Amino acid sequence: MALTLFEVAVWRDGRLRMLDQRLLPREERYLEFTSAEATARGIRDMVVRGAPAIGCATAFGVAVEARRLAARGIPASWSEAMAPGMRLLMESRPTAVNLRWALERMRPLLESTPPADVPDRLLAEAQAILKEDHEACREMGRHGASVLPEKSGGGVLTIMTHCNAGALATGGVYGTALGVIRGAVDAGRSLRVIACETRPFLQGARLTAWELHRDGIDTTLITDNMSGHLMSRGEIDVVVVGADRVAANGDAANKIGTYTHAVLARRHGIPFMVAAPLSTIDLQAADGSAIPIEERPEEEVTHLGGVRVAAAGVRVRNPAFDVTPAELITWFACEKGVVATPDRQKIAGLFSF
Amino acid sequence: MALTLFEVAVWRDGRLRMLDQRLLPREERYLEFTSAEATARGIRDMVVRGAPAIGCATAFGVAVEARRLAARGIPASWSEAMAPGMRLLMESRPTAVNLRWALERMRPLLESTPPADVPDRLLAEAQAILKEDHEACREMGRHGASVLPEKSGGGVLTIMTHCNAGALATGGVYGTALGVIRGAVDAGRSLRVIACETRPFLQGARLTAWELHRDGIDTTLITDNMSGHLMSRGEIDVVVVGADRVAANGDAANKIGTYTHAVLARRHGIPFMVAAPLSTIDLQAADGSAIPIEERPEEEVTHLGGVRVAAAGVRVRNPAFDVTPAELITWFACEKGVVATPDRQKIAGLFSF
Repeated sequence: MALTLFEVAVWRDGRLRMLDQRLLPREERYLEFTSAEATARGIRDMVVRGAPAIGCATAFGVAVEARRLAARGIPASWSEAMAPGMRLLMESRPTAVNLRWALERMRPLLESTPPADVPDRLLAEAQAILKEDHEACREMGRHGASVLPEKSGGGVLTIMTHCNAGALATGGVYGTALGVIRGAVDAGRSLRVIACETRPFLQGARLTAWELHRDGIDTTLITDNMSGHLMSRGEIDVVVVGADRVAANGDAANKIGTYTHAVLARRHGIPFMVAAPLSTIDLQAADGSAIPIEERPEEEVTHLGGVRVAAAGVRVRNPAFDVTPAELITWFACEKGVVATPDRQKIAGLFSF
Repeated sequence: MALTLFEVAVWRDGRLRMLDQRLLPREERYLEFTSAEATARGIRDMVVRGAPAIGCATAFGVAVEARRLAARGIPASWSEAMAPGMRLLMESRPTAVNLRWALERMRPLLESTPPADVPDRLLAEAQAILKEDHEACREMGRHGASVLPEKSGGGVLTIMTHCNAGALATGGVYGTALGVIRGAVDAGRSLRVIACETRPFLQGARLTAWELHRDGIDTTLITDNMSGHLMSRGEIDVVVVGADRVAANGDAANKIGTYTHAVLARRHGIPFMVAAPLSTIDLQAADGSAIPIEERPEEEVTHLGGVRVAAAGVRVRNPAFDVTPAELITWFACEKGVVATPDRQKIAGLFSF
């Protein structure tokens, strides 16, 4: 299939350029970032979102910060000079581990590179991360698609997904969960997609529906609370989602609501796939309970498009993620292949070859 | 506790007057109805919603139609004259059985009453239905509250509810699920409420949060997809919802998303209560599969406050209800009392004394 390449987080004329995903699908506006501080704010405010995309944005945020500092002269210690900006990036969002992963790839280069070469070296590393993301997504898509069930009678396979784990959540092409869907289309599978709207930020309604429609993939939008009803009617064959952080035992943090879909899928005997690159696995988190769950501002729940929809005076909770225990995950798909019923041993095995 | 009495569906100066619930909480506007046709449109367009409230509105819609016809002269056959209007009412919404129930209470009066007295007799019956609703909700609230679990250590009981099964969903006071909550407050219980916003129409965010806040009950709003996360963290003690139609075996149709909460509650060992008056039980429906599920317009999902939020070109599903099987229901509370783990025999028993 012909694929759109989105400028999720790219280098352009010495700056980090990002498509402002908050305005989609109504407007395609691009913002430019020239410091780590501005990049961190962009990540926090969700100009860019999706764990792999945040990883790419973070890497370019480090590169742009080095360029900003170098314009005033090469610092005596790159590590010291970069520390405040890297801390801001690290603190921008707590759940997506790709942010920390990207910083850990960039940080050693501050010391191992001749000082004058640091800005170029960091940029080259950020570009490498972006390129690896494209390759990982394509591989993950191919692997994930290969295990999708056949629809009996040769019918159309109905795949449900939650949030946006697409091109817009990664380096701008394929995606993770949507990479699996695109991989299935490439493999000639006949399929349709059920996209959950994903309250409160509506990534499903705004982003997934938009990018799949652009690619000509048959997509039906539902509100998040309809998945159980459709499953009970036999209208969903498989669930495929992304992840923001996968613990060492296979527990997966993903957008709020994912856990609910997994519980429902189990009740109805529907396979449940998590697709994410190795960079999303946090071996330091023993299990899901070690993954920090971000609580976001109340206004995301009470307001829509700047207009208050909820009654005044009411309290609000807004956890942005939940944890799906490994026991509910049928397959974990990554660039190395597919692991059935992930556990500690199988996850560790992904890093050993 | 001091209770607000809402004008959900009341008789005023020879007309049916209804609070326009579509505009809440931003505006309290009242609409007046002088025919069955206009009333049916009001029900379909959700000026009024909630099964018991629809029952009251239907009864007054019949009364106002008779008054309209009588103004042109007493018809030769009331049954024939009223048939078109009653059909429009019957077809206004398919799932809430209280609509049919109200019509079945009104219809025999067309033949059994001296023709000149029919308008007054129908109005008296509608007023009786409204009064009975108030009493049923109060009794249901008292019964339902009596079985709510104690919080260990004397702590605050956290009750989750979905949609609006409150004063606004009934005759204007107490409510069904919220009647149980108000009953618990009256009984001196210390509690807080988690209200699910209830996409796509946001009855939880707009109506439940509004009416509970007015009554001074501690209420926290969440999006529907957060319930699983909160349950997995031990933050919900009991779920209480209403119903739009209960089948003879105890299966309960209620607002879309209810089934999902019930599945999650079962996984986490959290009791799940359905509260509804006997008028919501449909003994003609053997089980949940016999309950028609309304599919509503796409715009309810794609637009918010008149503004399109979803990507253009995407398909939409919008089932307004789902069915929770009786096996997932811990208690069914009605005006006659509370039935644990409802089944065909126990539901039948509610009508035998």
